[in-house]
Amino acid sequence: MSRPSLKEKILTAGLRVVHQRGFAGASVRDIVQAAGVPQGSFTNHFQSKENFGLAVIELYRVQGRKTIAETLRNDSLPPLHRLESYIDAAKSRLSKDQMRNGCVYGNFAAEASCHSESIRQRLVEIFSESEAAIAYCLKAAVKAGELPPKFKINETAAFIVSSLQGSYLLAKAHRSPAPVDRFKKILFSTILR
Amino acid sequence: MSRPSLKEKILTAGLRVVHQRGFAGASVRDIVQAAGVPQGSFTNHFQSKENFGLAVIELYRVQGRKTIAETLRNDSLPPLHRLESYIDAAKSRLSKDQMRNGCVYGNFAAEASCHSESIRQRLVEIFSESEAAIAYCLKAAVKAGELPPKFKINETAAFIVSSLQGSYLLAKAHRSPAPVDRFKKILFSTILR
Repeated sequence: MSRPSLKEKILTAGLRVVHQRGFAGASVRDIVQAAGVPQGSFTNHFQSKENFGLAVIELYRVQGRKTIAETLRNDSLPPLHRLESYIDAAKSRLSKDQMRNGCVYGNFAAEASCHSESIRQRLVEIFSESEAAIAYCLKAAVKAGELPPKFKINETAAFIVSSLQGSYLLAKAHRSPAPVDRFKKILFSTILR
Repeated sequence: MSRPSLKEKILTAGLRVVHQRGFAGASVRDIVQAAGVPQGSFTNHFQSKENFGLAVIELYRVQGRKTIAETLRNDSLPPLHRLESYIDAAKSRLSKDQMRNGCVYGNFAAEASCHSESIRQRLVEIFSESEAAIAYCLKAAVKAGELPPKFKINETAAFIVSSLQGSYLLAKAHRSPAPVDRFKKILFSTILR
């Protein structure tokens, strides 16, 4: 493995700092200190903090896309089981820091989507990507007879993305995974039938 | 009506600035400028920014409590109709700025709940207050025969609080009320039956 570049160091440490302190709360100084790089290297690699924010979101997205491929879009598993695994994977990712930091996308949506049009648009794109993957999975569930033929696939997929975000936010406030578990339970016992 | 005190001026303008820019994104300078008061008056009235944040949350809560009294806890209306009015009131409150700023509680939960234990605890208290009011309303719905006798009141109330927050967050990102409408539609057509 090659040594990480300065840019990679800034992004890896930057994602951690932004996740813990929020985007506005993480100063360039905090970020370069956490990365152990000289302050000037930040401006060498990022035109602006907004630019850095977009790169941080993309880094977080790498893991998200991997999870989507392994669960929602994994055709070798029964469809509704994939959705369950997707929610469990998200929960276990959030649990690493006792739910303290929440979801990076949700945090950016709450905090930065009114400051930066580029960040807001990127988040809309990411939420739509999750929605499409969930819809893909629900469509397979209808085809497999796990859901009724007239099931409202797209509407339910959008609802799941939004309610999951809410459960992450409440989990963060409560420092407990209970809101995510509760959502999953109600989703499977009343909506996905 | 008496003239607003300096403290009231700071809080009214402060709530607006924090709602638009986020808590970390709103500097004391932004706040006193928006309030049209001297910088020193901030520190005269608030021991810390955390202290100010708690006061801003309480100011926002005044309207929230009024809405709860007029809808969820308004015994003169049919129970499920109250819940519908509560969601409509929240949506119309958020719509004032084209959904751009989201819910103050949700924003604080995403941004400030990891910085300040007092703010986090206050938010948990506020979410529990909403949950209790929704549970009160659902209990009345069971009593009125609008919901089945064994309906899971507390679990559903907590789910509604969490999913509503998610729908506000997505509405903010999309700058559209559609996520709130979608949640309401799915809630009433599949869960509250």
